[in-house]
This record gives sequence, structure tokens and C-alpha cells, in this order.
Amino acid sequence: MRTDTTVADVTVTEVAFPDPPLRNCAGLHEPWAIRSVMQLRTVGGFAGLSESYGDENFLAAVRRVGREVPGLSVFDVNGLAAVVARTLGGSDIPDAHGLIGPSSVDKSLARVLAFFEVAFLDAAGRVSELPVHALLGGRVRASVPFSAYLFYKWAAHRDADEDRWGEALDPDGIVAQAHGMINEFGFSSIKLKGGVFPVEQEIAAIRALAEEFPGRPLRLDPNAAWSVDTSHRVARELTGVLEYLEDPTPGLAGMAAVAARTTLPLATNMCVVGFGDLARAIPLGSVGVVLADHHFWGGMRASLQLAKICDVFGLGMSMHSNTHLGISLAAMTQLAAAIPNLTYACDTHRPWNAADVVVAPPVIVDGAVTVSDTPGLGVDLDVNALAELHENYLRAGITRRDDGAYMRRYRPDFRQPVGTW
Amino acid sequence: MRTDTTVADVTVTEVAFPDPPLRNCAGLHEPWAIRSVMQLRTVGGFAGLSESYGDENFLAAVRRVGREVPGLSVFDVNGLAAVVARTLGGSDIPDAHGLIGPSSVDKSLARVLAFFEVAFLDAAGRVSELPVHALLGGRVRASVPFSAYLFYKWAAHRDADEDRWGEALDPDGIVAQAHGMINEFGFSSIKLKGGVFPVEQEIAAIRALAEEFPGRPLRLDPNAAWSVDTSHRVARELTGVLEYLEDPTPGLAGMAAVAARTTLPLATNMCVVGFGDLARAIPLGSVGVVLADHHFWGGMRASLQLAKICDVFGLGMSMHSNTHLGISLAAMTQLAAAIPNLTYACDTHRPWNAADVVVAPPVIVDGAVTVSDTPGLGVDLDVNALAELHENYLRAGITRRDDGAYMRRYRPDFRQPVGTW
Repeated sequence: MRTDTTVADVTVTEVAFPDPPLRNCAGLHEPWAIRSVMQLRTVGGFAGLSESYGDENFLAAVRRVGREVPGLSVFDVNGLAAVVARTLGGSDIPDAHGLIGPSSVDKSLARVLAFFEVAFLDAAGRVSELPVHALLGGRVRASVPFSAYLFYKWAAHRDADEDRWGEALDPDGIVAQAHGMINEFGFSSIKLKGGVFPVEQEIAAIRALAEEFPGRPLRLDPNAAWSVDTSHRVARELTGVLEYLEDPTPGLAGMAAVAARTTLPLATNMCVVGFGDLARAIPLGSVGVVLADHHFWGGMRASLQLAKICDVFGLGMSMHSNTHLGISLAAMTQLAAAIPNLTYACDTHRPWNAADVVVAPPVIVDGAVTVSDTPGLGVDLDVNALAELHENYLRAGITRRDDGAYMRRYRPDFRQPVGTW
Repeated sequence: MRTDTTVADVTVTEVAFPDPPLRNCAGLHEPWAIRSVMQLRTVGGFAGLSESYGDENFLAAVRRVGREVPGLSVFDVNGLAAVVARTLGGSDIPDAHGLIGPSSVDKSLARVLAFFEVAFLDAAGRVSELPVHALLGGRVRASVPFSAYLFYKWAAHRDADEDRWGEALDPDGIVAQAHGMINEFGFSSIKLKGGVFPVEQEIAAIRALAEEFPGRPLRLDPNAAWSVDTSHRVARELTGVLEYLEDPTPGLAGMAAVAARTTLPLATNMCVVGFGDLARAIPLGSVGVVLADHHFWGGMRASLQLAKICDVFGLGMSMHSNTHLGISLAAMTQLAAAIPNLTYACDTHRPWNAADVVVAPPVIVDGAVTVSDTPGLGVDLDVNALAELHENYLRAGITRRDDGAYMRRYRPDFRQPVGTW
């Protein structure tokens, strides 16, 4: 077997870039979003890129695995999974914000595995002179639609200038934000991050969007802030208005209780976040749509397996987003291109962040990203930009994302509502 | 995207090779087994091989698809699946023997898709200078264990000389056959094809094997010949003796009724034969082990998806075999190598057939086949042997496998027992 595909070394660089004061039920986005960039080199001189979370406990685990990875073939994802499991054993790597559901050992391993797997696939694509989607079975679409991702937001971080999007704290503000997003990026679908204001106000925002943008698919995601009863009430009011309601309430049982009394599909990236959840969620009927996210589902190949399971069991597929840069956008696009049953527009935070670490980041035009057919993920590192964003990271002093702690600097009594509203 | 991976043309050749008079509940193996060999060429001059069924209705569908395949990339399995579906539409391609469960449109499409997909993967591996297992995520084992596959058999076909294995029509004959198989191939596991004699006799054969080969995993497969009550009786008698009981009775409901009253795992390649069956079988608890067979599950990638579903829902995985040549053995080995949760020895008919169409067929030593790390499937066509086996096909005059019709030449009143014994 050829040996030029063997991993020589892996380096991981923390980066930070400006993020607007976006609200969610966990709190408030900090002035700097943190992420991490992986560069993999093979002994044959091929490179692979990947992007993931920036939390220091996550990166400590990644670096432990990174020391064990040299010697593997970049095609050997099964070998990689074994190295991750052997190196990390029963480690749990919790995050502070809880926006992607509870942490677990399996999910922690899947998050670390995914970070490497994308770099493996990028390098494998470059070795084979093939786009990553070809290694995933081939693209079934030429472009991937993304959704506008609206947030309640403040006009500015403390002591900072107002950002270009301005304030959005009521239905009018949300509608204005949607116009801005759609004018600039051409989105066809619209998602509102909820769980911030009393449900009546969020229902009013959705109704205002429906009136202003008739026929456009709408979604609402309160990140499990609501009780089952509140979820029932919102589902009743917004059936026929939303295409799906995302994570209204916590847990498989709570979601099942909501689902049992509505025809509105419930989507999730919080209660079905690993393969182990599927075997329980499916008989319970907890969800109708799963939001894939290769960053925590174990990578792009694992996300294809998730997609097949959704297809077999009659669940819809959409895609989740965390704040990210161009490497992740390229990976999300390559993956989405290869999933036949991904029939919803994908989420992306992309419009909120202008910085990047790649030379020519994927762009959203007419609400979609054209699928790259160039080798690998189709993006090349901008080493100067990486250095600059790493400087940001060192200067920002943020080592784990904690939207709640940041919010409490403004409102000391802030507490995240979890299934209580 | 590189264009040297584009399919230029596909040719399919029918072959026939001598097969002993093996008994099963469908009847008797004919003197010639029929199969088909696919040769794919890309515009870059890369070749891909595949092997599948020889029935003329299957090959008519394959040839219709073969005319539409040029122009696809050999990496584009999703594109291939779309071409198969578009070309064949709602075609059902029944087989005459019923040994792999009922026919359906989905299964027919999956069988045709699989034939091409293996040739695509072989060519893709040669293009990439990688073994097929690397394209499937990497091998998790260096060799793949196979099981001895014992059959009740006659000494000879009519007007023919006795074959080297001789007669086996009772427990002593089966034990002698097992000794011959194990001496020659070193198998650790043993499977008996049942559904041929009254259950007491088959139970006695299993008991004789258990006594003669203590500690060796044993399996019994009557191809759904038994009633639910008979299946209960056999399960009661052989719990602790068999590692699993394969397809005792027809249908998901019947299997579930058996499974509900035994701790002996039930395996299947007859009632769960497509992804659509899984969504019904899992809640019913019909089976504990699924026997993958890339030839009818839609190919090697689809079999990996099946494996993941089995893993998620706590089902065991083993591998089914039909009479086959070295290309299929190579494909089965590459696939089995890449399935982490394939924890049983695979079935193979290999010892029953000496002929082949490849230059250096995989060999079974110590009950296992070493996983090839050479590009593609790791086997090269022997064009003279292919021509010879095609001559056999033309001479034999068999255009579809029909064990029942052949049996009725000896015993005109033979009828296949289906859930009735």
C-alpha cells in the first residue's frame, strides 16, 4: 500500500475573531469567538485542513491524540477512531454553553475524531486529486442552500462601536435583520434563534417574518428553554407557519411529549447528538428532523451514516451550525452535497463573521454555496491570516466559550432557562 | 475534477462452473453454477472488476444500466444509484430459488447497483493506488475468518462421476464432511445448511458436530423451512449449542414469534434483506444478527451503512454467501475487513468450487483470508479462464438458477417447504 498518504505531523492553532453580541438562551456571544485550525502533513507532502471548537479542554484532548496520529494513513478513519478511543479512553469533555445538548464520553470522542477526520479527508482528496464529496460517494447537488440565521442582538459590546447589523430586540428589529441578510446573501429559508424573550414575543417575531416573507420556510430554535406545556402552546400557534420547531424542550421524553400532540415536525441538535441517542429517540418518536453537525457526530463519514439512519427510519435531515470560519463552511458544503436526503437548507453563522483563515473562502450567493470540485475541501490556508487570528486569540484571553458568564457581566442575575419557560 | 476516472464502457460476461449436488430446502444445486463477471474501463485506462448473479433477467437489467453508466466518475456512487433508479424504475427482478428472501423493487435496484458499485470501487482503488478497504475507511483486521459451510449432498449428479466430497445424508456424513473441510481449510466455525431432512435428524447432525468439534461455533440454516412451533422446539434443543440459528421460519412476524421465546440469537439473510425491512424488524425484535451480503444490499458502501445500523440498534453482524468465484471472495474480504462490528466468521461456498476467473484467487488458510493491501480488490482477471467459463455457460444452457426445477428431475413431487415443517 502506498506510504505517501501516511500522516507525518499535525499542528493545531487556536484562533479568535470578532463576534457580534448575539443573544441565545445560554447568554450572549462574547466579543471574540474562538475556534481552532488543524494542519496535517503527510510524509508525501500532502496537506489537510480542518476547523473545530476552540475550548482549551477540547484542544488538550486533541493534542494528546495528535501525538498518536503520525503513522496512520489519511484514508484509515477506522484506525483513527481506534487511536482516539485508546488515547482518550473514558474522557468526557464538557462545554460551558450546553447549546449542543449534554456532554458524554461518546460525544467527546466523536468531537475529537471529527476534527481529525476532516483533515484526513482533505488530505485524502488532495492525494487522490478528488474533491472530498467524491470520497463521500459523490455530490447529488451542484450547490448547497443555507438558511438566514437571525439572532436577537444588542447594538454593540460594552465600550465598543455599534456593529453593522445594529440592534434587534423585537419583531421589527428581526424583520429588518432578515431584510439585511436576504439582500446581502439571498437566503430563501429563515431561522430565528429564540429562547431569549417570552414566547409570545418570539411567536410575534415569527408571525412578522411570515407576513413579510410569505412562502419562505421559517424555523424557530429556543435551545430547549421551554417547558412541555409552553412547547405545546407554541406548536399549536405556529403549525402551518414553521417548517420545523427546533429543540423546544429538553430531553428525549420531553420532546416526545411535545411531538405526540402536534403535527409540526420537531428538529434537534440537542437531544439526539450521538448514535446512542437514536436507538432511544426513534421508538419514542421524540423528533422528526435531525440536524447533522459533522463537528460532533464523529466526522463527515459518520454524518453520512446518520443520514442513512434518518432515511431508513423516516426522519428528516437538516444541518446545524456553530460560529465558524471558511474551513468548516467548506466541509459543511462538501458533506451536504453528498447527502441525498438532506432536503432542508443548512444553518450557518457565516454572515456574522467577516474574518477567515483561508485564501478564498466559500461565498454565499443566492442563499447557497457552490460545491467545489477542486481537490480536498477546496480551500487553502492563508498563513498570514492564521497568524493574525492566533494573535487575536492570545490577546483575547478567552479559553472556553461561555455565553452565560459573559451575559452575567451585564446582568449578574442571568440564569439560563432550561425547560422552564 | 480529474476526468481519467470517468467510465468509458462496461462489459458483462456470463460464466458457468461445475457445482456439486448440494441440497437445500429449495431443492438441489445444478451441475453448473452460473454467475456473471463485469469488466469496467475508465477513459484513463483503469479497470474495475465485479462479480454477481447469473440469472438472465438480472443481467438484462444490468445491461440496460450498463448503457447509461459511461460518463460517470467511478467515485460517484450516488450518481450511479440515481442512474440505476432512473433506468430501471419500478422493475422487480425475481429469482427462482427464494433463498435470499422475497424479491422487491428496492432489492432489485440494490442488486443491480451493487454489481456496478464493486466495479466502481475496484477501479477507484486502482486509480488511487489504494486497496478498496482504504476507500471504505480502512481495514480493522489483517485477515477475515470464514466458516465451514456444510451441506447435505449426494455423491454425484446423474450420469456423472462421484465428486471428491462424496455423499453426506446423515450425521456421520456431515461430520466426515466437516473433517474434510477443516483439514483442508482450517475453519474454526461451522455452518450446516438445513431444511433438508426432518428437524430431528438435523438436530442430531448439529449434536454430532458439537461432540466432534467441542468449542467450535456452530450454526444451522434451514432457509425458513420450519413453522414457528418447530423453530421453538429446535431453539429449545440447541440453545447453548449453536452460536445462532439462521432463518428458522419465514417473515418478520414469524421470526419475532420465535425470538420472543428463546435466548438463542436468530440470524437472517431472508427476512431483513433491505433497508426498508430494518425499520419494521427492529421494533418487532425479529432478529439478533443480520447477515450482510453486498450483492443484494446495494454494494459495499451500503453494507457499511447496514453495519452501522446494526451497531446502533444492538444487532450482530455476520456475512451471507451465495456460490461465487474469486472476485466476490475478494470483495467480501475487503468489505469484512472494514466493518468494525463484524464479529462472526463469514459464510462462503468457496470450498465447493475449484474454478475461477482471476489469476491468483484469494485463498483460505487457517480458516481465514488475508486482507489484500494491493490496489482495488486485489485480484486480476484471467482472460483465458473467463473465456473458458463463458464457453461453459453457453454449453450448459442454464439461464437462471432453479434448484427446485432441477430437484424435480429426480423427484417429480418435490416441493419446497416454506414454514411448514
